[in-house]
Amino acid sequence: MAVEPLKMILIIGDGMADRPVRELTFKTPLEVANTPNMDEIARRGITGLMDVLEPGVPPGSAPAHLAILGYDPYNNYTGRGAFEALGIGLNLSADDVAFRCNFATVNDEFVVIDRRAGRYIHEGDELAKAISGLVLSSTPDVKVLFRHSIEHRAVLVFRGKNLSRMVSSTDPGRTGVRVLEAKPLTNDPSAIRTAKALNEFTMKSHEILMRHPANKRRTSRGLPPANIVLCRGAGTLPKVMSVEEKFNIKSACIAGVALIKGVCKALGFKIIDVPGATGGLNSDLHAKARAAIKALEDHDFILISVKGTDAASHDGLLDEKIRMIERIDEMVGLILDEVDVESICIAITADHASPISVRNHVGDPVPVAILAPTVVPDEVSSFSERASLKGGLGRIRGVNLMPIMLNYSLRGKKFGE
Amino acid sequence: MAVEPLKMILIIGDGMADRPVRELTFKTPLEVANTPNMDEIARRGITGLMDVLEPGVPPGSAPAHLAILGYDPYNNYTGRGAFEALGIGLNLSADDVAFRCNFATVNDEFVVIDRRAGRYIHEGDELAKAISGLVLSSTPDVKVLFRHSIEHRAVLVFRGKNLSRMVSSTDPGRTGVRVLEAKPLTNDPSAIRTAKALNEFTMKSHEILMRHPANKRRTSRGLPPANIVLCRGAGTLPKVMSVEEKFNIKSACIAGVALIKGVCKALGFKIIDVPGATGGLNSDLHAKARAAIKALEDHDFILISVKGTDAASHDGLLDEKIRMIERIDEMVGLILDEVDVESICIAITADHASPISVRNHVGDPVPVAILAPTVVPDEVSSFSERASLKGGLGRIRGVNLMPIMLNYSLRGKKFGE
Repeated sequence: MAVEPLKMILIIGDGMADRPVRELTFKTPLEVANTPNMDEIARRGITGLMDVLEPGVPPGSAPAHLAILGYDPYNNYTGRGAFEALGIGLNLSADDVAFRCNFATVNDEFVVIDRRAGRYIHEGDELAKAISGLVLSSTPDVKVLFRHSIEHRAVLVFRGKNLSRMVSSTDPGRTGVRVLEAKPLTNDPSAIRTAKALNEFTMKSHEILMRHPANKRRTSRGLPPANIVLCRGAGTLPKVMSVEEKFNIKSACIAGVALIKGVCKALGFKIIDVPGATGGLNSDLHAKARAAIKALEDHDFILISVKGTDAASHDGLLDEKIRMIERIDEMVGLILDEVDVESICIAITADHASPISVRNHVGDPVPVAILAPTVVPDEVSSFSERASLKGGLGRIRGVNLMPIMLNYSLRGKKFGE
Repeated sequence: MAVEPLKMILIIGDGMADRPVRELTFKTPLEVANTPNMDEIARRGITGLMDVLEPGVPPGSAPAHLAILGYDPYNNYTGRGAFEALGIGLNLSADDVAFRCNFATVNDEFVVIDRRAGRYIHEGDELAKAISGLVLSSTPDVKVLFRHSIEHRAVLVFRGKNLSRMVSSTDPGRTGVRVLEAKPLTNDPSAIRTAKALNEFTMKSHEILMRHPANKRRTSRGLPPANIVLCRGAGTLPKVMSVEEKFNIKSACIAGVALIKGVCKALGFKIIDVPGATGGLNSDLHAKARAAIKALEDHDFILISVKGTDAASHDGLLDEKIRMIERIDEMVGLILDEVDVESICIAITADHASPISVRNHVGDPVPVAILAPTVVPDEVSSFSERASLKGGLGRIRGVNLMPIMLNYSLRGKKFGE
């Protein structure tokens, strides 16, 4: 039995948990998938159910990850935009307000025709450069940064004093309706000012995008023009202690998608970019496993986040979800083969359930399994929503997981003398 | 598998949970009663234990119902009186202070002889009219409303500004002692003023009741005179969002007793009065089931509250409690027969345990079972305190139940984007 602190690995299958599926004779994808390695973690370790936020509350992925990483999501979730900005490599200041954006297509009446302008905007960088740096007459002191991410996705940052994330979206969330006017969500002058800036940005960028040669090329090839920027999820940097200050662990994040990278960056994780880790169904999970094993050399804690399970769930792709779970299991196997299980604490869970039948996040508890030489094992021998009902962890909250892992890793911080 | 939001029914057997009973070879009434329908909900659904307020804390029925309906009882319970007033059909304003009252009998020294003046006060309405509208010289700006409910029960409302619910009872809670003087519970002038008003009301109404012809008739027939009003449970309207604003569900309440109707009215439920639903052991539960099924047509959520189990418990009537549980089970069976279980979420629980051996509320966790096409079933196959120890819900709190039911009904509200 180790007395030295253990290394820690946490594997999150995004939206991996599900509900009984009729086509699977009321089993869940996790129950049907062949997962010998996750089952081994359950069999040799301790399992249970986890309410990621609170019982019954469907979590967004960003607050879910905040909670699972030990940060109270209700106090620390400050909107999606800042995490998206950090995730694509922008550095934010404390006063910046950032938005998650889509390039989209509108007609002459500002009615949204395509919320993603065809999804594949190869001209994205060129278009982004044309509107980044735009000067707003309503708020000339505010600097406008605009950066293309991948596909139709982009990030807008307002940099300046007296800005607020309390503004509504311009993205109506569906086609056939007009672009929304941003509204301040409080009476605060900074919110009023930010809404004004966002509305002016929307109009001015539309004029530039409409006339841009790249869009003329798109139209001539029969592609929808990326002639508007739709903004949502206004966010600011959360004011939090880094994970190193809070838990005294040097931490690294291996994730495919910008949002999760951004959450981890906000918490002071080192972000390890793995070639081939796409966040999609084709993501190279073997490469992620190898990167994690390597990162263990000079980090105490590695988070591995896999998005493909959630992507399959949102699209209602049952077979792909099962296959993705099996690929995560192979990744877990590769890690179990390479590490010394006597000196590591490995946990596997999901950030929320995304049932195939719902195609969206729900508030069900998710299964969690922890393997460490220090746990008292229960009698559960497989990893699933149903098997975990009988787990020895009982029913915990998302914010409990990190302290529990730290404790089993001999890194717990005593409260009181 | 449903993708449309499910309808919801919650059945609460008041004080239904119990402890092992010696006469039942240490089984509980729920274990001994024949309950095939509740057992079916447990077998096909998910079960667990619920601490209605907090572990070990015996709940009053009003805070218990607040919690189970999703409202933090510690922030939203503002005394019993207001709920009693709403429950008998009085409309309250935000500043009103209401009291739960008894007609009682005192002797010349103000010593309580009978806390219920014989319980059956057929002259109640006549007596109430004689004291409603009383003018108080200590607080001439305060309007006095007094309304008889059933048996010995009544409600007093002080209507005016600068009143407070922070005053003590005049009801000593037992016979052989003097009526209590109401005391302000804080130094606030409004509490001091309200206590003064209550004491003056008690004296003045006593003088009127003593001399009232109805009481002379009672005395001449050998009945104890209803010559005093004992007041307790000063309460004000809780300042809460309606259940429709909070959870986006149109809700209806089917209950026998005023207190539960009042809680539901305060939360914006439609109150459905069912002829024959008395709140007693003779309550027509088939009529309640039929009313619930009908109400499902134009409501999303129906609460059915049955008081008889608690009434039997308070009186120590073991056989009657078992019989009442079986009658609740028949009601559940009627509902299960009539609804489409693929499109509904049904939960059954108790608002607290009222052990026959204690004859009062205790802080034990209560069993809860939820049936919906969306749950991951556990292996529990009967509904009882003991069977639920192994339930897949684990141990939840009262305030968790509503979000959990909403989640399984595809009505959860996501936190974060």
